[in-house]
Amino acid sequence: MFARPDALPGARAAACLTQFKQWPPLIHCLTNEVVQELTANVLLALGASPAMVVEPTEAAQFSQLAGALLINIGTLNASRAESMLAAIEAANLAGTPWTLDPVAVGGLAYRTAFARRLLGEKPAAIRGNASEIMALSGRQAAGRGVDSTDDSLAALPAARELAQLSGAVVAVTGVVDYITDGRRDWAVAGGDALMTRVVGTGCALSAVVAAFCSLPGDRLDNVATACRVMSLCGERATHRAAGPGSFTPAFLDALYQLRAEELQ
Amino acid sequence: MFARPDALPGARAAACLTQFKQWPPLIHCLTNEVVQELTANVLLALGASPAMVVEPTEAAQFSQLAGALLINIGTLNASRAESMLAAIEAANLAGTPWTLDPVAVGGLAYRTAFARRLLGEKPAAIRGNASEIMALSGRQAAGRGVDSTDDSLAALPAARELAQLSGAVVAVTGVVDYITDGRRDWAVAGGDALMTRVVGTGCALSAVVAAFCSLPGDRLDNVATACRVMSLCGERATHRAAGPGSFTPAFLDALYQLRAEELQ
Amino acid sequence: MFARPDALPGARAAACLTQFKQWPPLIHCLTNEVVQELTANVLLALGASPAMVVEPTEAAQFSQLAGALLINIGTLNASRAESMLAAIEAANLAGTPWTLDPVAVGGLAYRTAFARRLLGEKPAAIRGNASEIMALSGRQAAGRGVDSTDDSLAALPAARELAQLSGAVVAVTGVVDYITDGRRDWAVAGGDALMTRVVGTGCALSAVVAAFCSLPGDRLDNVATACRVMSLCGERATHRAAGPGSFTPAFLDALYQLRAEELQ
Repeated sequence: MFARPDALPGARAAACLTQFKQWPPLIHCLTNEVVQELTANVLLALGASPAMVVEPTEAAQFSQLAGALLINIGTLNASRAESMLAAIEAANLAGTPWTLDPVAVGGLAYRTAFARRLLGEKPAAIRGNASEIMALSGRQAAGRGVDSTDDSLAALPAARELAQLSGAVVAVTGVVDYITDGRRDWAVAGGDALMTRVVGTGCALSAVVAAFCSLPGDRLDNVATACRVMSLCGERATHRAAGPGSFTPAFLDALYQLRAEELQ
Repeated sequence: MFARPDALPGARAAACLTQFKQWPPLIHCLTNEVVQELTANVLLALGASPAMVVEPTEAAQFSQLAGALLINIGTLNASRAESMLAAIEAANLAGTPWTLDPVAVGGLAYRTAFARRLLGEKPAAIRGNASEIMALSGRQAAGRGVDSTDDSLAALPAARELAQLSGAVVAVTGVVDYITDGRRDWAVAGGDALMTRVVGTGCALSAVVAAFCSLPGDRLDNVATACRVMSLCGERATHRAAGPGSFTPAFLDALYQLRAEELQ
Repeated sequence: MFARPDALPGARAAACLTQFKQWPPLIHCLTNEVVQELTANVLLALGASPAMVVEPTEAAQFSQLAGALLINIGTLNASRAESMLAAIEAANLAGTPWTLDPVAVGGLAYRTAFARRLLGEKPAAIRGNASEIMALSGRQAAGRGVDSTDDSLAALPAARELAQLSGAVVAVTGVVDYITDGRRDWAVAGGDALMTRVVGTGCALSAVVAAFCSLPGDRLDNVATACRVMSLCGERATHRAAGPGSFTPAFLDALYQLRAEELQ
């Protein structure tokens, strides 16, 4: 057994969001086909600038200009994989931090091999649900694909291993999110089950994690703040929503209205 | 002339939705680029789990795990056609029912040849507007593409022929929807013209048809229930909406809130 | 120095919208992956019919049936470029007017070469922000990609040159939009900064510009009316919105509710 991690202190989250608002980054998103609009709108609501540049030579060129890069393998195919590899190589040359969302890894062979290969490419952060993090770390996953059937706390040891192996800060998200650099952990509560009834909330969180990786300072705090921003706004939106349809506009409004001091 | 079909009895629709809520399926959606987010959100609002897996080997692997498969040819190209054929072959081997949405078939040569070829691949269901169903059955269509200019009742004979030819339950949708297995028919009223001013409502209906094909029991009833769920929630959302923008959140909320007994 | 252009007279805008409502066009949209749903919903809210047909032979076939064609290079790749060239060639043969949205041109080499090549293909209209219009005209752009850091009035000379070079009506949009055919100009005010926090509002404007190019009459007036329709509805939606999330439904409702006489 291991101790349950402490909650991210509100003052640290507030400090990170203050920095983010001062230097809103340009984020290069190579993400899945289904969630691109929500991903872009979440970043825009927070003041960041998203861009989806997909042709391989342009993806490489743009990764060097961007403040951060997101790689989401939800609708991976050979053409998109080529663009992702070009973008990651250029990002690493330019020092642009890149974040991996290993969607549905474990159950499907093609993406699992691709995601494992990417672990050697120095990701700054990895964000997944418990099944994905366990599968990516080489442990057995219980999931059937996009849904997580594992508890996030049970996946924390796998997340720590993955952090040590890859050098990334790893966020394993669920009812409670756990964020680890392999030595230190934070817990982030909040959110609502309604968020699982809206496609792309997890993918958008990964984009926000990518965006916060553009900040200077402690990456563990920055990634945990990304999780906290999303869970707090998810809670607020749920209170105003009658269902998943009215959730999305309320969520984007909440992200837009959020002030750093409210995280304290 | 032929008799106008009877309306689907509310008690049958309620029984089908009760079953659906008990075993919410995992739906593999190979659908068009424009409507993926709405399609996923409609399925999630009903409690089902959508997934879009597009690489050919993964699409085949995933079709065997899923409860049902949707094939929508709205933005068909050579790469997506390859994935669809791989997914359908695997679905048929695994006994996964698959549903065809023959978007804009008839007017455009490439997709028309592809859709006709798929008729021999044992679809469980086909959902289209009057123009599409008439064109797919080989009758002359009056449509200019994505809009249906034919009346759904006038297309019912073509729908019956198509059902007999392919073995699928065929839903021809419009102001009134008609659902036929080639021998028996149901009519489903409801919906609102406002739904034609929101992209993807028809495509999302096809995804719900696909999802209901995962149920045991009479497929004719199951497909007609999918149509009824969408028409009833479309009506409710229209009453709460000031236009097509506020329709979508209200529609997703209505799907989320719908209880089986309300169909009676 | 040059004189600030006059505002588009309301009576001209009202006359153009009246025509548009009488003959709502079918618009073929080859646009970027991120904005397809919003683009389609904006056109539908105005009463037009959007269709996204992407396979090269079908894209060529469909361009001849459509009232107008939109080419948006936001997520250009080799496959989409092939479809665009086929669609443009067919459109020009059939006399279908086509509109270019040169997203992020200037900063990225692949799309910049492609967009420059398209200038020789007789576009009916070009819609971009100041950075894009300056880059496309060969002047130095200050932008870093998708954001415009140049003022639209400063880009008006470049827009005029581009109009004379290409034969297109050019709309350079920003806080104030300027529309020019190289000799005559209109100014269109309105809109709100909140629109820049919603992905695809500019891309959707280009689709509306494309749609208005299907009208007979003075193309300068028609393109300026497209800009005015969007800026007025953007203002109205902002007044009803608490942030970018509630903006989008309100914007689509406003487009749906707009009557021509309100433009006067």
